[in-house]
Amino acid sequence: MDFRIESDSIGSKEVPTEAYYGVQTLRAAENFNITGYKLNTELVKSLVQIKKAAAIANYKAGLLNENIEKAIIEASDKILGGDLQDQFILDPIQGGAGTSANMNANEVIANEAIQILGEKKGDYSIVHPNDHVNMGQSTNDVFPTAGKITALKLLLKAIEQLKKLDMNLDMKAKEFNNIIKMGRTQLQDAVPIRLGQEFKAYSSVIKRDISRLEAAKKELEVLNLGGTAIGTGINADNKYMNTVVPILSDIIGIQLEQADDLIDATQNLDGFVSVSGAIKTCAVNLSKMANDLRLMSSGPRTGLEEINLPPKQNGSSIMPGKVNPVIPEVMTQVAFNIIGNDVTITMAAEAGQLELNAFEPVIFFNLFESIETLTNGVKTFTENCISGITANTNRCKKLVDNSVGIVTAITPYVGYEKAASIAKSAIKTGKPVKEIILQNGILKESELDRILDPISMTEPRELKKYEFA
Amino acid sequence: MDFRIESDSIGSKEVPTEAYYGVQTLRAAENFNITGYKLNTELVKSLVQIKKAAAIANYKAGLLNENIEKAIIEASDKILGGDLQDQFILDPIQGGAGTSANMNANEVIANEAIQILGEKKGDYSIVHPNDHVNMGQSTNDVFPTAGKITALKLLLKAIEQLKKLDMNLDMKAKEFNNIIKMGRTQLQDAVPIRLGQEFKAYSSVIKRDISRLEAAKKELEVLNLGGTAIGTGINADNKYMNTVVPILSDIIGIQLEQADDLIDATQNLDGFVSVSGAIKTCAVNLSKMANDLRLMSSGPRTGLEEINLPPKQNGSSIMPGKVNPVIPEVMTQVAFNIIGNDVTITMAAEAGQLELNAFEPVIFFNLFESIETLTNGVKTFTENCISGITANTNRCKKLVDNSVGIVTAITPYVGYEKAASIAKSAIKTGKPVKEIILQNGILKESELDRILDPISMTEPRELKKYEFA
Amino acid sequence: MDFRIESDSIGSKEVPTEAYYGVQTLRAAENFNITGYKLNTELVKSLVQIKKAAAIANYKAGLLNENIEKAIIEASDKILGGDLQDQFILDPIQGGAGTSANMNANEVIANEAIQILGEKKGDYSIVHPNDHVNMGQSTNDVFPTAGKITALKLLLKAIEQLKKLDMNLDMKAKEFNNIIKMGRTQLQDAVPIRLGQEFKAYSSVIKRDISRLEAAKKELEVLNLGGTAIGTGINADNKYMNTVVPILSDIIGIQLEQADDLIDATQNLDGFVSVSGAIKTCAVNLSKMANDLRLMSSGPRTGLEEINLPPKQNGSSIMPGKVNPVIPEVMTQVAFNIIGNDVTITMAAEAGQLELNAFEPVIFFNLFESIETLTNGVKTFTENCISGITANTNRCKKLVDNSVGIVTAITPYVGYEKAASIAKSAIKTGKPVKEIILQNGILKESELDRILDPISMTEPRELKKYEFA
Amino acid sequence: MDFRIESDSIGSKEVPTEAYYGVQTLRAAENFNITGYKLNTELVKSLVQIKKAAAIANYKAGLLNENIEKAIIEASDKILGGDLQDQFILDPIQGGAGTSANMNANEVIANEAIQILGEKKGDYSIVHPNDHVNMGQSTNDVFPTAGKITALKLLLKAIEQLKKLDMNLDMKAKEFNNIIKMGRTQLQDAVPIRLGQEFKAYSSVIKRDISRLEAAKKELEVLNLGGTAIGTGINADNKYMNTVVPILSDIIGIQLEQADDLIDATQNLDGFVSVSGAIKTCAVNLSKMANDLRLMSSGPRTGLEEINLPPKQNGSSIMPGKVNPVIPEVMTQVAFNIIGNDVTITMAAEAGQLELNAFEPVIFFNLFESIETLTNGVKTFTENCISGITANTNRCKKLVDNSVGIVTAITPYVGYEKAASIAKSAIKTGKPVKEIILQNGILKESELDRILDPISMTEPRELKKYEFA
Repeated sequence: MDFRIESDSIGSKEVPTEAYYGVQTLRAAENFNITGYKLNTELVKSLVQIKKAAAIANYKAGLLNENIEKAIIEASDKILGGDLQDQFILDPIQGGAGTSANMNANEVIANEAIQILGEKKGDYSIVHPNDHVNMGQSTNDVFPTAGKITALKLLLKAIEQLKKLDMNLDMKAKEFNNIIKMGRTQLQDAVPIRLGQEFKAYSSVIKRDISRLEAAKKELEVLNLGGTAIGTGINADNKYMNTVVPILSDIIGIQLEQADDLIDATQNLDGFVSVSGAIKTCAVNLSKMANDLRLMSSGPRTGLEEINLPPKQNGSSIMPGKVNPVIPEVMTQVAFNIIGNDVTITMAAEAGQLELNAFEPVIFFNLFESIETLTNGVKTFTENCISGITANTNRCKKLVDNSVGIVTAITPYVGYEKAASIAKSAIKTGKPVKEIILQNGILKESELDRILDPISMTEPRELKKYEFA
Repeated sequence: MDFRIESDSIGSKEVPTEAYYGVQTLRAAENFNITGYKLNTELVKSLVQIKKAAAIANYKAGLLNENIEKAIIEASDKILGGDLQDQFILDPIQGGAGTSANMNANEVIANEAIQILGEKKGDYSIVHPNDHVNMGQSTNDVFPTAGKITALKLLLKAIEQLKKLDMNLDMKAKEFNNIIKMGRTQLQDAVPIRLGQEFKAYSSVIKRDISRLEAAKKELEVLNLGGTAIGTGINADNKYMNTVVPILSDIIGIQLEQADDLIDATQNLDGFVSVSGAIKTCAVNLSKMANDLRLMSSGPRTGLEEINLPPKQNGSSIMPGKVNPVIPEVMTQVAFNIIGNDVTITMAAEAGQLELNAFEPVIFFNLFESIETLTNGVKTFTENCISGITANTNRCKKLVDNSVGIVTAITPYVGYEKAASIAKSAIKTGKPVKEIILQNGILKESELDRILDPISMTEPRELKKYEFA
Repeated sequence: MDFRIESDSIGSKEVPTEAYYGVQTLRAAENFNITGYKLNTELVKSLVQIKKAAAIANYKAGLLNENIEKAIIEASDKILGGDLQDQFILDPIQGGAGTSANMNANEVIANEAIQILGEKKGDYSIVHPNDHVNMGQSTNDVFPTAGKITALKLLLKAIEQLKKLDMNLDMKAKEFNNIIKMGRTQLQDAVPIRLGQEFKAYSSVIKRDISRLEAAKKELEVLNLGGTAIGTGINADNKYMNTVVPILSDIIGIQLEQADDLIDATQNLDGFVSVSGAIKTCAVNLSKMANDLRLMSSGPRTGLEEINLPPKQNGSSIMPGKVNPVIPEVMTQVAFNIIGNDVTITMAAEAGQLELNAFEPVIFFNLFESIETLTNGVKTFTENCISGITANTNRCKKLVDNSVGIVTAITPYVGYEKAASIAKSAIKTGKPVKEIILQNGILKESELDRILDPISMTEPRELKKYEFA
Repeated sequence: MDFRIESDSIGSKEVPTEAYYGVQTLRAAENFNITGYKLNTELVKSLVQIKKAAAIANYKAGLLNENIEKAIIEASDKILGGDLQDQFILDPIQGGAGTSANMNANEVIANEAIQILGEKKGDYSIVHPNDHVNMGQSTNDVFPTAGKITALKLLLKAIEQLKKLDMNLDMKAKEFNNIIKMGRTQLQDAVPIRLGQEFKAYSSVIKRDISRLEAAKKELEVLNLGGTAIGTGINADNKYMNTVVPILSDIIGIQLEQADDLIDATQNLDGFVSVSGAIKTCAVNLSKMANDLRLMSSGPRTGLEEINLPPKQNGSSIMPGKVNPVIPEVMTQVAFNIIGNDVTITMAAEAGQLELNAFEPVIFFNLFESIETLTNGVKTFTENCISGITANTNRCKKLVDNSVGIVTAITPYVGYEKAASIAKSAIKTGKPVKEIILQNGILKESELDRILDPISMTEPRELKKYEFA
C-alpha cells in the first residue's frame, strides 16, 4: 500500500495515500476498537451539514476565502450525496468527547476540497482541517449539535411509525367495537369490556407517546453551535455566531435555534436524557401492549384464545404446527434494550465535569440505537402484527357468559356482602350467577337482564338509588 | 386487649375494639410486612380527599343519604385535620394494586362516621366501607388518582425548592461575574471563563428542569376517577361521574380533569414514568453541579482550590481540621437513589397486564421517595452550600495566568499548527505562552494584549481575518 | 429544654442536656434531613460492636487505660442490649462517607462511658469521642466494616428464609408429582409436563440462589478495619491492627478476616456491588416464579385455572368475591425495588474517587433495604402463598387431553412436516390429534398409546429409529 | 435472481437459488429488521458446534444414518472453518426465543450437507433441517446452550486481557513504590500515600474481578442441552442425552456438564444475569480507576498533575497542544454501556414465563456486547494508557510537603482537639504544620521528624502510648 506522511502533536505517521481521512482519524481508529461498529451514518451526515453551514457563515463573516468556501461546500455535498462513506471509519464508542469524529469529518472534507482545488490529499496548506474546515468551531459545539440534529431526524421517523401504529390501532378499535369480552385485573376475572375498547386504549396511549416525543423534539432544536470550546464562543466571530444556526436550519430543513446560555448548553446533556426518557416511556407502553397481545392470543387450546395474531413463521424447530407471538416478543425485547440504554445515557450525562461532558459518544450510540430500534420495532409490530389481528368473538362471549365477575353489576342493588356471597356460591357450585340470583328471588328477571346487559355494562350509565340502602 | 369480630370473604377475625380500621386492613397488615415503613402520609390524605369528594358527588347524584354523606364528610375532615393517622397501618409495598390501602381508608372513615352517627365501630349496617364510603368507586380508579394528586402536591414543593436554588445560583452568578478562572474540558486546561458564567450555567439548567417539572405536572392532572374497576365506569352513576373530579379539584385546590379514555387511564401508568423521568433528569443536573463544586473546592492545599464551600461539620473522625463537601455529597447520593428508583418505576409500569397494573404500590413508594428526597436534598444544597460559597479570586487568576490553554485565542491569527508548537514549547520549558510569542516575534505586544484580554476572551467578539491564511 | 455547650471545628453549639449524642451528630442531623428514615438499627449495632472491639484491642496494645476501656465496653454493651436507640438520630442518606454515623456512635458511647465513670455528659476530658472511642480508627475503615458485617447478618436471615421457601417448594414438587399438565413456551401450548416438575424447577433455582448468596457472603467477610483513613493504617498501632479483627469476629460470632490490601479494601466497594448482584439475581428468579403462579392461578373462570393460591384477603373494593394473587404481586414488587436499588448501588460504587468512596451511605441504605425486603417478601411468599397452593388436577388433565402440542411426540416417527400437517388439521377441525392420526392410519393405536403416554412423555426415554427416515 | 420454492406452515415462498438458508430464515429476516447488525459470529460458531455434536450423538444412538451424519459433520466443519458466514443473515434482536437463529443454522447446514451428498439445495428429503440437523434438539435447549458456550469463550478472552492489565498495574506499582504523594478522600487532602500503593490497589481489585469472572464462568458450564422443548427431554433419545454434552465438550475444548434439573435449566436464565453482574462489577472498578487516572493527570497547569498519561492523539480541534485522557474516557464509557446492558439483561431474565424465557436474544445481544467491549476496552486501556504512565515525582512530593493533612499523624500524641487547632492555624496563616508545632513547643523536632517521616507514615507502625492521655 502507498502512504503519505502526516503529522500532528503526537508525531508523524503513515496514512494510506488513497485515504481521505488523515493522521488524527487514523490514531483514533487505533485507539478505539471497541464495538466493531461504525459511527451512525446519519450522525456523519449531520457533521458534514454543520461543516457546510460553518463554511458559508465564515465566508459571510469575511473570514474564509471564497474558493476555499466553495471547495468545502462541494466536498460536503458530495458526501451528503453518498460519496466517501467508507472514509468514516471510527467506532461509535470513542474517548475524547467526539474530537475524533469531528476530525474525521474535518479531514475527509479537507482532503476532498484539496482535490477539488486541484492539489494532492494531505497538502493542508490548501485547505486545513482545523483552520478552514473547523473554522470558528470546536468539537464541543459541533459534536453535541450533530448529536441533536441526528436525534431529531431519527425521531421524526419514529413518530411517523408511531402514527401508523396509532392509525392501525384505531382501525382495530372500530372493527372490534362490538365484541364483548371479559376484562381482567391482576389476571383475575373482573367485569366485561369490549375488545374495541381495549384497542382504543392502546391507541390512546400511543397518541400520548407521540405528544411526548413531539415535546421532547423541542429539546433537540436548541443548539450550542457557536459556543466553540466551552460556550464562551472563543475563536468564533460575532457575525458567524449570528448566522451559522439559521444557515444550518436551511440546510437541514428544520427550524433550529441557538441556546441563550451557550455555556450551559455545552456542558449539560440533560436534553438527551429527557429525550431518552420519552423514548423509554413509549417503550414501556409498547411492551405492555405486546404482552397483552401475547396473553390474549395464548393457546391455541390451553390459553385465553381471545384473539389471533397473524402467523409469521414456524414457531418451533421441534414442535410442529406451533406458531408463536414472535412480533410482540421482538417489540418487548426492543423495549428492554431501550430501558437499559436509558440507564447508560443517564449515567453518562451525570458524569459531565465542569465545562464539558466527555461521554457524549456513548450517549449518542445508545440514544440513536434506542430511537432506531423503536422505529424498526414499531414498523414490524404494526405491519406484521397489529394490522392482521383477528378476534375469536364466540370464545370471548362464552367466557363472559360463564364468568362470575358480572356479579359486580348487581352490587349497587344488593350490597357488597350479599353480592360476595352470590359470587362465592357461583364459584363453589359452578352455577351461573344469573341462575343463583333468580333462584333466590334476589332480583326480578327483567331487572336483572337490564343490569346485566353486556354492552351497557361496558359504558357509564344511570344507576337507581340503592334499593338495599 | 378487647376485640370485635369482623368478617369478609376469607372468614371472621378479631379486630381490636379501639381500631378504626377493620378486618381487611388487618389481613393486609399481616400479609405485607415488607419495608417496615408506613404509607406516605400525603397519600393517605389524598385517599381521604377522594372519599370526601365521592360522598358529595354521590349525594348530589341522589344515591347517598344525606346523613351518611355528612358523616363521611365529617370523618374525612377529622382525618385531614390530623386525627387517626395511626390507623393507617399498612406497608407502602403491598400486593393487590392498592386495594388494601383503599380499604384502610374506607374502613377508618366508615368507623369514624358510624361513631359520628352514634353507633359502635364495626356496625357497618350504619355506614358500610364498600357500599357507602367506596360508593361508585373502585381501588382501580381511587388509588391511581390518589397517587397522581399526591405526586402533584409533592412536586409543587420540589419546584418551590428548585426556584429557591435557582435564585441563589443567580445571585452567585452576579457575585462572581468578574472572577476570571480557567475553564476545563475533560479535566484538562481549556480556555478562560468567568466563575459567574459557570454559576449562570447552573442556573440555566435548573430553570430548564423547572420547566420540565411544570410540564410533567400536567400528566398528573388527568385522572381516571370515575372509571371504577377497569375504566368502563361500572357501578358509577352518570351524574357522579360528571361531578366527582370538579368536586375533588375544589377540595384539593388544583385544577384536575377526567381522562377522555378512562380505560387507557386505568391500565397505563406511563404518566408516572414520565414524571419520574423528569425528576431523574433534574437529579442528573444536580449531581453534575454537585460534582463540579466538589472539584472546584478540592484542597485545601493539593486540589483546585478555586472556591470554598461553607464548612458545615467536622470532616473526619481521625483527620483533625478536615472539612468535606458533605452537602454536595448528599445531593449526589439523592441523585443516585432517584436514578435507581426510576428503573423500578419503569419496570413496574411495563409489567401492567390487560385492564390494570397491579404494581402501583411500588411505583408510588419509589416516586414519592424520589420527589421528597429531591426536595429535601435541594433544600439543604441551597441553604447549606450554594448560598454560602465564596471564591478564591487570586488563586483563580493565578491559574489562568500560568496556563497554556490561552494559546487557543492566538490560533485564528497564527494557525493551529504554529499555535500547537507554541503550546508544546510552553509546556516543555515552563515558560508563559505570552513570553514565547513575543520572543519569537509572532505577534506584537499590543495585539497580543488585545487578544489575550481575559474578560474579552470569555465573550464572543469580532475576529480579524486570519492573517496567516 | 436544658442545654450544654459543645464545640468542634465549626464552632460552639447548644446540645440538649439529656442527649447522649454531641455536637457533631447534631450538626449532621441539621444538614441531612433527606429520607425521613433513621439509620438501620442493625448498622448501629455493628458500629457499636466495632467500637467495643477497638477498645479491647487498643487496651491490649497498651494504648488505652483500663478504666476507659471498661467504661467503653460497658457503654457498648448497654446499647447492644437495646438501650439508647433513640440517640441514633441520623438520616441513612448523609454526606461525609459515614463520618456522621461514626461520630454519632463515638459520641453516644463516650457520653455513656463518662457517666459510667461518674462524670457529666459532655466532659470529654474523661472519655473523648475521637481520642478514646475512635482510637486507632477512622470512619473510612469503621463505616465500610460496619456496612459489611451488617449486610452479612441480614444476609443470614435472607438465606434462612430462602431455605424455608426451598423446603416448601420441594414439598409441593412431591405433592404434585403425578399431576400431568400442559407445558407452555412463549405462552403457547407446548408439550406435557408434570406440575411437580415445575415446582421442582422452582426449588432448583432457589437452591442455586442460596449458593450464590453463600458465595457472596464471603465478599463481606473481608474487612478493611485497621486501614484507618486511607488504608495505610495511619494512627493505628501495629498490635491493635493484628488483633482487632479477630476480636470483632469473637464479638459478632462470625469468622472475619482483614484484607491483604487495605488500601484497595478502603477505596473499592465492588464487594457490595457483587452482593447486590446476587440479591438481584435471586429477585429475578422469585419474580419469574411469582408471575408463573399468577398465570397458572388466573381465573377463576376465564383464565388458566390450573392451581389455586390460598385466598388471603378480599381482592377488590368494588368486585365482590374477587380474590387476587396479592402475595405473588408483592414478591414481584420487592424484586422491582431490588433491581432499581442495584442500579443505585452500582452508580454509587462507580463514583468512588482516589482513596475513598464518599457514597457509602446510599449504598448501605439501598443494600440493606434490598436484603431486608427480600427476606420479608420471601417469608410471606412462603407462608402465605407457596405452602397453601392446591392443584386443579382435572382441569390440568383436560387441557392436556384437548391439546395439539402432543403431536410433537409423534414427530420422530412421522417427520416434522407430516406432524405439522396433522397439527394444522387438528387446529382447523377441532378434532383431537389422536383421532386424526388413527383415521389416516399414520400409526397403530397401540404404538400411539405408547408414544402419547402422558407420564412417559415428561421423562427422557428411548426412541426407536425413525421409521420414516 | 433465480429462486427455488420452499414451504413451511405459513405457506410457500421464493428463496434465492444461491442461498444456503431456507424459507424459515428468510421469513425471520423479513420479520426482524431491528438493529441493522447481524448475529454474533461466535454465537453462530457455537450453534454449528452443537449441531455437529448432536449429529455424532444421534448417530451413536443409532438414530441417524452414517452418510447423513458424515455430511452434517463435514458441512459444520466447513462453516467452522470460515465458509458460508454470509448465510447467517439474522438480526440479533429477534422474536421467537432464538428459533430463527437455530433454524438458520439448521437450514444452512442441511443445504450444505445436501450438496455434499450430491443433491440440490432445497431437497430436504436428503437432509432435513428439522428431522436430521435438529434431531433430538429444540431451539429451547440449543439456543441457551449456544449462548452459554459463546459467553464462555468470550469470557476467556476478557479474563486474558484483565490478566495483562493486572500485570501492567503490578509493574507500575513496583515502579512507583517510592513516590510519596498526597492521599485524598472526598477530594480533600487526607494523609500521605505512595503512588505505588495506589497502583497496587488497582491491581488488587482487578485480581478480585478475575476471580469473580472465573467463578461466573462456572455458571456457564452447566447446560440444558438434551432437555429439548421444555426440559423434559421429549424427542431426545436416552443414549443421545447421555453423550451429547461430553461430545460437545470435546469439540469446544472446555469441560461442560449437563444440568441436573433440565426443566429449571431451560426456563431460568439467572446464570446470564449472574455473569452480567460480575462483568458489571468489573466495569465499576475499571471506571473508578479510569476516573482516578483522569483526576491525577489533570492539568497540565491547573490540575493535580501528579501523573502523565501517554499522549495518544490531538485532544482538540480548536485548542492547540491540548491532550486529553481519551483512553480512560473510553474505558468509562464502556463501563456505562455495560451497566445499562445489565439492566436490559435483568429485565429480560425476569420476564420469562412458565417453561421458557422468550427473551434470550436480547439477553445474548447485550451480554456479548458487554463482554466484548470490556475485552476491547481493557486492551486499549492496558496498551495505550496504563503501560505508559509516568509520574511527576517532584510535584507529588511538593504537594505533600505543603499539605496540612499530615497533622493527622500528630494526633495520637497531642489529641484530636489540639491537632485540629494546629490544622486550622496552618490553613489560616499558610504556614507549614511543622513550623507551627515547633514554634509552639508542642513536640520536639526529633520526635516530630520521626512521626512525620513520609514513608513510615504510609505503613502501619508502632505507636507510643498517647502522651496527652
